[in-house]
Amino acid sequence: MGRTSDARERLIRTAMELIWQNSYHAVGVEALCRKAAVNKGSFYHFFASKRDLALASLEATWHFAEQHSLRPAFTMDGSLRERFARFFALVTEVNRQDHIERGLIGGCPFGNLGNEMSGEDKALRDKVQSIFMRYIAYFEDAIREAIRRGEISAALDAGKIARLLFTYWQGVFLLTKTSNSIATMEELSGGALRILDGLTNEVAV
Amino acid sequence: MGRTSDARERLIRTAMELIWQNSYHAVGVEALCRKAAVNKGSFYHFFASKRDLALASLEATWHFAEQHSLRPAFTMDGSLRERFARFFALVTEVNRQDHIERGLIGGCPFGNLGNEMSGEDKALRDKVQSIFMRYIAYFEDAIREAIRRGEISAALDAGKIARLLFTYWQGVFLLTKTSNSIATMEELSGGALRILDGLTNEVAV
Repeated sequence: MGRTSDARERLIRTAMELIWQNSYHAVGVEALCRKAAVNKGSFYHFFASKRDLALASLEATWHFAEQHSLRPAFTMDGSLRERFARFFALVTEVNRQDHIERGLIGGCPFGNLGNEMSGEDKALRDKVQSIFMRYIAYFEDAIREAIRRGEISAALDAGKIARLLFTYWQGVFLLTKTSNSIATMEELSGGALRILDGLTNEVAV
Repeated sequence: MGRTSDARERLIRTAMELIWQNSYHAVGVEALCRKAAVNKGSFYHFFASKRDLALASLEATWHFAEQHSLRPAFTMDGSLRERFARFFALVTEVNRQDHIERGLIGGCPFGNLGNEMSGEDKALRDKVQSIFMRYIAYFEDAIREAIRRGEISAALDAGKIARLLFTYWQGVFLLTKTSNSIATMEELSGGALRILDGLTNEVAV
């Protein structure tokens, strides 16, 4: 067993990894404890249930995603199209690494859990929904900035374009996962930019 | 216990319903047998495993979807846009009924399973992938027909537009499920038509 002092962190990191690579139901408290080298007593000291750990792990995954893909992509200099292209490329790299390491593609940790658990657990569903809103807010801010710069028409509905693009992007994760091929993500990322073009070339959306 | 003669059918229908409303892992052979009023011996007479039943149930769900949404939408008279609008409306109705009956939205039975099980079971992943290809073929045929009619440019890549639209549509299911609101599906269905417009207004995609 590892040091108790960082047992909570180890459980969160382990849950992030195992649930992402498998599914929520497939990963039990026992397996989480074993992989994290934490005993069950410690688990229940930190978390009331697997669901509580999953909620904490979703939040930790969000911070990771924000730091490694959203912020680098959306605070970089460049046009709206360049920013989205960078975001898609960064996410593609994470999934490419996963495929190289495991021969499998984990997809979106939030979309996965939202898909699996929305019918069974409202707390998990609401958490995923709130994280989706944070993604959409990043997209929307970038679109608003492009409007302010005069890159795209001021008549466009930034919130709606952001929602449509994020919706498409969730589909990209799923199609990539079911095809188990990074080439799918590469093709569909290009498609995302065409969709962005189509939505932003219109005068009113 | 019900009649053995239709036990196989009852198991398939029960699996279609329970797995769609919950998740693959959440539904065990025991629960399937109980709900279908079939004893375990009969279950294993017809299916080697829960996975075998799930494969048969995916195929049955495909035939249902083809009959109730794809065929009615894509064999109707009307423009490409009208056909897609009808397809989205038919699927939205199924999910609206689900929400009325259960207060929950099941989403796409294929996307759900593909999302949950792609990392764990190649047979299930491949089955979902092959059903996705059949959907995309319907979309692609409709786009090709619109090209033949001169409705949209002959320079368009029908296969690519079909893949992008289907990808978006899978995202629609997920966002609808996590928001647990039919209004989401209604808004995002409208978005699908805008995306279709954007992709088909270009000369080359």
